[in-house]
Amino acid sequence: MKMTKPKDSAPGRWLSYRPEIKVLDCTIRDGGLMNNHQFDDQIVKVVYDTCVAAGVDYMELGYRASRKGIKAGEHGCWKYCLEDDLRRIVGDNKTNLKLTVMADAERCDYREDILPKKDSVLDVIRVATYINQIPTALDMVKDAHDKGYETTVNLMAVSVVPERELDEGLEMLAASEARAIYVVDSFGALYSERVQYLVKKYLLHCKASGKDVGVHMHNNMQLAFANTIEGIILGANFLDATMAGLGRGAGNCPMELLLAFLHNPKYKLRPVLDCVQNHIEPLRAKLLWGYDLPYLLTGMLNQHPRTAIKFKEAELKGERGDILRFHDAVTDQE
Amino acid sequence: MKMTKPKDSAPGRWLSYRPEIKVLDCTIRDGGLMNNHQFDDQIVKVVYDTCVAAGVDYMELGYRASRKGIKAGEHGCWKYCLEDDLRRIVGDNKTNLKLTVMADAERCDYREDILPKKDSVLDVIRVATYINQIPTALDMVKDAHDKGYETTVNLMAVSVVPERELDEGLEMLAASEARAIYVVDSFGALYSERVQYLVKKYLLHCKASGKDVGVHMHNNMQLAFANTIEGIILGANFLDATMAGLGRGAGNCPMELLLAFLHNPKYKLRPVLDCVQNHIEPLRAKLLWGYDLPYLLTGMLNQHPRTAIKFKEAELKGERGDILRFHDAVTDQE
Repeated sequence: MKMTKPKDSAPGRWLSYRPEIKVLDCTIRDGGLMNNHQFDDQIVKVVYDTCVAAGVDYMELGYRASRKGIKAGEHGCWKYCLEDDLRRIVGDNKTNLKLTVMADAERCDYREDILPKKDSVLDVIRVATYINQIPTALDMVKDAHDKGYETTVNLMAVSVVPERELDEGLEMLAASEARAIYVVDSFGALYSERVQYLVKKYLLHCKASGKDVGVHMHNNMQLAFANTIEGIILGANFLDATMAGLGRGAGNCPMELLLAFLHNPKYKLRPVLDCVQNHIEPLRAKLLWGYDLPYLLTGMLNQHPRTAIKFKEAELKGERGDILRFHDAVTDQE
Repeated sequence: MKMTKPKDSAPGRWLSYRPEIKVLDCTIRDGGLMNNHQFDDQIVKVVYDTCVAAGVDYMELGYRASRKGIKAGEHGCWKYCLEDDLRRIVGDNKTNLKLTVMADAERCDYREDILPKKDSVLDVIRVATYINQIPTALDMVKDAHDKGYETTVNLMAVSVVPERELDEGLEMLAASEARAIYVVDSFGALYSERVQYLVKKYLLHCKASGKDVGVHMHNNMQLAFANTIEGIILGANFLDATMAGLGRGAGNCPMELLLAFLHNPKYKLRPVLDCVQNHIEPLRAKLLWGYDLPYLLTGMLNQHPRTAIKFKEAELKGERGDILRFHDAVTDQE
């Protein structure tokens, strides 16, 4: 992995690395969208221990969602990531791994539910926002920043954001306290050239204000890893990945591929192989993440994967739907 | 898909297509490496019918391997692709789909076994060669060309070819009768930038002699489709793909992803979805192709996938090997 895209593809550039690069594991957070956040403590602990052993920089343990109007037990505890739940796994986290949760704009009582940093084992609050929620997201960033946290913003579903709104949104986010702004391919719809275009645009806004750009890719068209590499080459420094790619729908950039690619000797692949093989892959039959034809179709059409997830859920009952009927339904909706 | 890589990522360029692009299905040929070429006629016919319906340009039905010293029944018939076997599937092939077989340098009695074009249902002979076999390959190309066939050359395992030999080899191949020369990532070891570097180099040699460049990618690091796109953008016109990615080890560029990407209206995705879902995926449990950790490791190490294939074969007995032991073994070999 090289510093920048070389004009002459000089092979020597492959041997160096960019120390600014940070790898973030969001296995439990993004994977939680496939099991209603009901991971056993044992799995969360395995992922935590693996991140520590592998030299991963950040781990996202789940969401900090609003608990208003929710019945106890309706969702797994990683939807809320209360301090007690976190500490049950990580203790006081006396490691170099920084811990984070995601807070969705308009789905989080951030003023009450996010404690001052000194009272929390968390290091970072990641704010997720759709383009129309940016004013709320900015207030969340400020609130978390003022409480002592590092913050980042995941601007979701960028593949359906009109250009003009994106420019205005990035301008607003660039003026915020966030340390990094993420290019988020929620629908797994981006080809390399749109990744290039977007990462360059984000860099333009972020560099002027001293921020980093991040990439969070989905694997609907088997491009999550390739698009992450594309981001790296252009200068994105914050990289989201998950063990075995576990995440919503077609899943995310697989951590094992990313660490195999990165040349910083602090990253260790071996613990990740163990985690994937012995702890994450055994979940696949029930969680059903990963590339499959319905995800290809929603990705190709730049649609939310919810119809594809629903199609896949029938497999839990041992049924496989008719892919041609699915194809005809989603293409007719266009 | 656009004509060339635009400097400004102008979105309009995404809507056009390059009519010179040819898609080649090698499901039965590359997939045959996972089942000793023992496909039922019914599956071969389904793939053939699918290629015709999907507007695919070429279909490779198998190898034309030497039969000397081989016992009858030792391998499936698609290792030899005798005229009678081919015609049992395709009749006289009164379609626009061109038919091809692969002939490996030094593993084929080409003078005897390749009939004059007028006596065969085949249109194209694809010669596969390692860098050190090029003189033989050139003679095979000439033989097939003189018999009336279109020819191409797949220069295998390019990721381990020394630069100086590659330059000399390409010079020799550029002077041949072949219509196209393929960049072949046999080990699934290429990242996008080496694909760029190689495709540009091949183009340089090929354009001067009026040839096309092809790409044949493997999916060890989930990059087969991404690397195929990379080739397209740079100007490669011959694209190998297989139904559901069926092929040796981690498999190939999936046809369904490739056709979803290409904008030429002659390509139809729907028949491919049917074929993948209802005919190819049911073979996966026995043929075991596709991305998995051992393939990542051999790809990352730029090794032949044979150790990974062996590791995977234990799964046919319901056993999964120890990936850490595999990791330690392959990395020690380095």
